[in-house]
Amino acid sequence: MAEDVAARLAEVVGAAHLLSGDAVPEDYAHDEELTGEPRRPGYVAKPATAEEVAGLLRVATEHGVPVTARGSGTGLSGAARPRPDGLLVSFERMNAVLEVDTGNHVAVVQPGVTLSELDARTAEAGLQYTVYPGELSASVGGNVGSNAGGMRAVRYGVTRHNVLGLQAVLGTGEIIRTGGRITKISSGYDLTQLIIGSEGTLALVTEVIVRLHPRLAHGATVLAPFTDLDRVLAAVPRIVASGLAPTILEYIDNLTMAAITHTAQLALGVPDEVREASQSYLVVGMENRDADRLHADIEVLGELLGELGAADVYVLDGGSARKLIEAREKAFWTAKAAGADDVIDVVVPRSAMAQFLGAARAAGHRREAGVIGCGHAGDGNVHLAIFCKDPDVRRELLHEIFAEGVELGGAISGEHGIGRAKREHFLELEDPVKIELMRRIKRSFDPVGILNPGVLLT
Amino acid sequence: MAEDVAARLAEVVGAAHLLSGDAVPEDYAHDEELTGEPRRPGYVAKPATAEEVAGLLRVATEHGVPVTARGSGTGLSGAARPRPDGLLVSFERMNAVLEVDTGNHVAVVQPGVTLSELDARTAEAGLQYTVYPGELSASVGGNVGSNAGGMRAVRYGVTRHNVLGLQAVLGTGEIIRTGGRITKISSGYDLTQLIIGSEGTLALVTEVIVRLHPRLAHGATVLAPFTDLDRVLAAVPRIVASGLAPTILEYIDNLTMAAITHTAQLALGVPDEVREASQSYLVVGMENRDADRLHADIEVLGELLGELGAADVYVLDGGSARKLIEAREKAFWTAKAAGADDVIDVVVPRSAMAQFLGAARAAGHRREAGVIGCGHAGDGNVHLAIFCKDPDVRRELLHEIFAEGVELGGAISGEHGIGRAKREHFLELEDPVKIELMRRIKRSFDPVGILNPGVLLT
Ligand SMILES: Cc1cc2nc3c(=O)[nH]c(=O)nc-3n(C[C@H](O)[C@H](O)[C@H](O)COP(=O)(O)OP(=O)(O)OC[C@H]3O[C@@H](n4cnc5c(N)ncnc54)[C@H](O)[C@@H]3O)c2cc1C
Ligand SMILES: Cc1cc2nc3c(=O)[nH]c(=O)nc-3n(C[C@H](O)[C@H](O)[C@H](O)COP(=O)(O)OP(=O)(O)OC[C@H]3O[C@@H](n4cnc5c(N)ncnc54)[C@H](O)[C@@H]3O)c2cc1C
Repeated sequence: MAEDVAARLAEVVGAAHLLSGDAVPEDYAHDEELTGEPRRPGYVAKPATAEEVAGLLRVATEHGVPVTARGSGTGLSGAARPRPDGLLVSFERMNAVLEVDTGNHVAVVQPGVTLSELDARTAEAGLQYTVYPGELSASVGGNVGSNAGGMRAVRYGVTRHNVLGLQAVLGTGEIIRTGGRITKISSGYDLTQLIIGSEGTLALVTEVIVRLHPRLAHGATVLAPFTDLDRVLAAVPRIVASGLAPTILEYIDNLTMAAITHTAQLALGVPDEVREASQSYLVVGMENRDADRLHADIEVLGELLGELGAADVYVLDGGSARKLIEAREKAFWTAKAAGADDVIDVVVPRSAMAQFLGAARAAGHRREAGVIGCGHAGDGNVHLAIFCKDPDVRRELLHEIFAEGVELGGAISGEHGIGRAKREHFLELEDPVKIELMRRIKRSFDPVGILNPGVLLT
Repeated sequence: MAEDVAARLAEVVGAAHLLSGDAVPEDYAHDEELTGEPRRPGYVAKPATAEEVAGLLRVATEHGVPVTARGSGTGLSGAARPRPDGLLVSFERMNAVLEVDTGNHVAVVQPGVTLSELDARTAEAGLQYTVYPGELSASVGGNVGSNAGGMRAVRYGVTRHNVLGLQAVLGTGEIIRTGGRITKISSGYDLTQLIIGSEGTLALVTEVIVRLHPRLAHGATVLAPFTDLDRVLAAVPRIVASGLAPTILEYIDNLTMAAITHTAQLALGVPDEVREASQSYLVVGMENRDADRLHADIEVLGELLGELGAADVYVLDGGSARKLIEAREKAFWTAKAAGADDVIDVVVPRSAMAQFLGAARAAGHRREAGVIGCGHAGDGNVHLAIFCKDPDVRRELLHEIFAEGVELGGAISGEHGIGRAKREHFLELEDPVKIELMRRIKRSFDPVGILNPGVLLT
């Protein structure tokens, strides 16, 4: 039976592009979720076209094989972790930038293209795809799957705001195209938006039209230490309201700052006494097409930060600015190396961040668990590393933190997704009416339920 | 039976808020669609709460009564035109601004609030809801229904990009809340985005969280006549690429310009010889929080327009700028008064506008029909008034124009919606696989099919 399936799948993609059994490398058994056990899939197929993807789904339907899509496997929710009896569809061969269309400010790409490759290609045209999750080996298809965000979302929005159209294969094996090289459309339900963030449970994406923005020639990074965390969080809405439109607006707590600068061997020029008195930092990235305007804005920002209670304000030079941003991007690896037991990314209304963080830290404190982190403060998106070995206590702690976030009008995940890792919490905390509605919507795309079972809903 | 239904509906909203039979004023029999015959609904109910809306839907389900939602009835697609046997749910009593939340830059509103009311309320806080369709008596619920756009969409996006959360009642009578006071979320399917643009066919919206932006203190409007239409359209992508980020980027053809300035009795200071040689105009709105930057940008824009072939460049003074924008907003009324037989708003990739317009005008020419207009050029959204009395010829002409738009990678409607007016064309031109998928999605929300039958899909 398994051999029969393997033979059928190999017929679709060619024997060279189908792995099964022990021939499947360990890397395909997981994504970057910290808590899930790696699970080698029954089969890995590497299709080259949408038609091949459709062929794979037809075989999977016929044999009842669960299907998991995989981009680069850098996701943090376990949504690309396959089932042992399942088929992993890896998009690594569908990795071309098909077109950079400067007239319409879009790029047309295959889903497996990495962000670094797309960044290089758009740079040639003076344009950029502005979704920058910390990990540039991630794929555009993975961005679509998780509705990825990253540091620049405060200015440019998340994946949802930067994807204009898709080609996708439904669970039924039917191929559709949605949206286009257009920024607005009012002609039927928005299937593009519905598929974005669906974590491979509605359709497999085989082509993506992404929106591009001009690259701005001049940039600077400002670092402001604050003596207390509440003040840094209270500063955030004021900076957003200022109209300075930062491209980056991050908070980093002192433990996280110590860890990431230590790992990166990065000296930021903050004097010892300021550093020792600082509970938290704000990192503000500014960009402008005009150097004079940039400098004028940085001055306004500096004054504003002073008024808002910053202990000091540092305009970092190019080298250390880049290194600090890179160190922030690698915060996940630092947390992992430090032994973090989980990493979460609750989103709450910007003005509720202080209350949320206070509650989350208190919940950790009561259980002698570490709750430290940083976050896309401009978006109210708080990234916390959880240090708590006992899985039952951790479960309870996470539940309390997620419930607090939801209670404050937020959601369990701002950008990483629910996946396998947070599914149980999601099903407990989300309105059952909406869960049932989402299940019906899923059946509209995937009547037999072959797409990523165990993720999000089921 | 009808009396029984009326009694049941009156129980839900109170007798004072239920009209039926001859007591229904004519205004409820139509929206602003040019082609459809007015049809007085069986009942008009004016609920005050989400619970009352749910109660109405339960009665409607029980008695198989089709339900149409109505905001202000300014829509152009016939989507708020009720069925003679149906219930019109008017949101005129649910018209409060519940909160302007400056910390999170959002407003929480009831769906029946008009754009002018919301504009006044947000102005007090120095903020703005940036969706400005030409008609400010329109409601926010209607914006959500049609995914309205308007002139400022080139900078701020359409309704879809400015609505963060909803309260809505499904066809089943269940009440849900989606999204929140947050700009990103990756926790399940995006129901907010799915409901936006669904023209009252999936759910009735009972509360809306809209995103607000800072009001910019300084603004100017630039008018540039061009001797040929292709050149004006070719200029558009260049202006978008310039990074000047205009708030308005409209093209207006010479006939339309003559008509709207005549109606508004507006003298723009364009000398006769320039006006006579001009085929088309570009109107560019610029705003900035800083007056010096605004002026510098206008200078750059002026030079760029010169390079791109503008016959001349006029920076309009405040009074005539405002009047020109108002006249452009009223283009629909001007077209209607001039006897236009239909008004359409095809969207195509920005770089394909010239080709699209050429084909549309040629298609009109072959049938001795008038095809003139203006459009949100920055978005590739072309608004055309169609002068063609014979309904069969007109149908054929529209079909050809829509097919051309779709062929070029666009869609039948960029912001007005499909409604009743364009449904037949939509069903003919859209991929049947997507139509069937949308029908299944609709059934997930509205299993019995009471919500706006005859609109969009069915
Ligand atoms: C160091 C580090 C930092 C990170 N920082 C951020 C951050 O700041 N912001 C952020 O949002 N994320 C961040 N991430 C998470 C991750 O990079 C993003 O979620 C990214 O979008 C995943 O891309 P991927 O190609 O690795 O996807 P994968 O992990 O392969 O897959 C992610 C999801 O998308 C689905 N999928 C993949 N391809 C397709 C397809 N073609 N069709 C349908 N579904 C598909 C998968 O099934 C899965 O559900 C970080 C990760 C790391 C390791
Ligand atoms: C002069 C003029 C200029 C215009 N210019 C533009 C323009 O530039 N751009 C643009 O996009 N539009 C434009 N329009 C069209 C119109 O103003 C917009 O579509 C507006 O959003 C309609 O709002 P309304 O309250 O009048 O909606 P209605 O006409 O009452 O309804 C529109 C749709 O929304 C649904 N709906 C209404 N309320 C709800 C609710 N609470 N829950 C669920 N569904 C609901 C209705 O069923 C219908 O499908 C213009 C119209 C006119 C008359």
